[in-house]
Amino acid sequence: MNPTMQTLLAHRSIRRYQDKEIGEDMLNDILTAATRGATTGNMQLYSIIVNKDKNIKQQLAPLHFNQQAVTEAPVILTFCADFNRFIKWCQLRNAQHGFNNMQCYTWAVTDAVIAAQNAVIAAESMGLGTCYMGTVTYNVKPLCQLYKLPKHVVPVACITIGYPAETPGITDRLPLKAVIHEEHYHNYSDNDINDIYREKENSELTKQLLETNNMDNLAQIFAERRYTKQDNEHFAKELVEFLVEQDFM
Amino acid sequence: MNPTMQTLLAHRSIRRYQDKEIGEDMLNDILTAATRGATTGNMQLYSIIVNKDKNIKQQLAPLHFNQQAVTEAPVILTFCADFNRFIKWCQLRNAQHGFNNMQCYTWAVTDAVIAAQNAVIAAESMGLGTCYMGTVTYNVKPLCQLYKLPKHVVPVACITIGYPAETPGITDRLPLKAVIHEEHYHNYSDNDINDIYREKENSELTKQLLETNNMDNLAQIFAERRYTKQDNEHFAKELVEFLVEQDFM
Repeated sequence: MNPTMQTLLAHRSIRRYQDKEIGEDMLNDILTAATRGATTGNMQLYSIIVNKDKNIKQQLAPLHFNQQAVTEAPVILTFCADFNRFIKWCQLRNAQHGFNNMQCYTWAVTDAVIAAQNAVIAAESMGLGTCYMGTVTYNVKPLCQLYKLPKHVVPVACITIGYPAETPGITDRLPLKAVIHEEHYHNYSDNDINDIYREKENSELTKQLLETNNMDNLAQIFAERRYTKQDNEHFAKELVEFLVEQDFM
Repeated sequence: MNPTMQTLLAHRSIRRYQDKEIGEDMLNDILTAATRGATTGNMQLYSIIVNKDKNIKQQLAPLHFNQQAVTEAPVILTFCADFNRFIKWCQLRNAQHGFNNMQCYTWAVTDAVIAAQNAVIAAESMGLGTCYMGTVTYNVKPLCQLYKLPKHVVPVACITIGYPAETPGITDRLPLKAVIHEEHYHNYSDNDINDIYREKENSELTKQLLETNNMDNLAQIFAERRYTKQDNEHFAKELVEFLVEQDFM
């Protein structure tokens, strides 16, 4: 197996970091790798905000629900879908554009996430640890204020990077066949679902979770405890309002 | 520089392929690498449709505006944001969910693109070539029909994979500083924009494009020729209607 495959297969999220800076050369290589990813029509429809300042990380932390990784990691990278730079260029060159819609927003989201994943893989190839902060799409309005985002810029991915202070095992995944569809989508029967989730539902981790949460099954922990309908709908409303403000909807 | 960094920095899109199959073991490794990427709460909110059948690739081609790569590449992978599997699981386990909204759709999109980029890097590390088909978000309704996608599934990324039949150089990028913002977003002045785009605007490739297209500048080629307001708004409308049909809006 080649070294890149080894890097990819060894991925795990690192949430605890050593109190040790990342060298400028390393960070520069990580950012350069991010920009080498494919982008829609080579338009590079993203921007990367680099946070190292302790004071700003303190302000950022509550927007990520005070996850320890945000204050502990030496570097936080926030990848934004960005049509602002490209639109400014078009305006300056008297080019009549139509980029303020959901189709174009989707291109920019894809560009930003590809760049983020390249940064993750680059960092991991150097022995650094990373973790995606999925919370980046929750508090988009205060995040926009903190980062001074102009119209046509939306945060879509955030990663913490640093030297690991923990060595977790790799996380379980569904069997490969559960996510693969040959030629077209084959919808799941009840038996398929039981089969796919069996191993996950019977793991030691799940047993501990059920005990701690005092709930009947793992699906309920996900749907009724971790990602509740009330929370999801609140943050969906915030996100949609923000997409309207940013001129994409 | 480590081998993974070399893979990342050597990325280029490959649009022409040799008439040579990809071995099952290689494809299996690529798909496994895709599933090792980070996913929101380890929910794996994506599915991967694998196309190898020549007949289906012929039907797929017009939905990608007959790009040659679609019929020439031995393997096409279409990554879908997928909450169908997870919601079916919740329903079967009597877990009350609230996943049918734009916040949850965003998680699934991110999961799908991370998986796609892992597949790209895995394939490239084995000497294969890849190309993203950005057109995957254009004709979402006929694509949904062809792929028999149920509710809560949306195609978001598509890659062609095969042995390269061309050896293009790596593509130009804006200067690194153009996409990096220290601590917060620093908006661009007119001078900044001129500075950022100077090299791109003065390249040989641009000079050829201006001559071929008979237009004043590169921004106009992007905004008024390649990605016109009329097209973008048409495909945005199609996409939004589809997101409503798929129960995310």
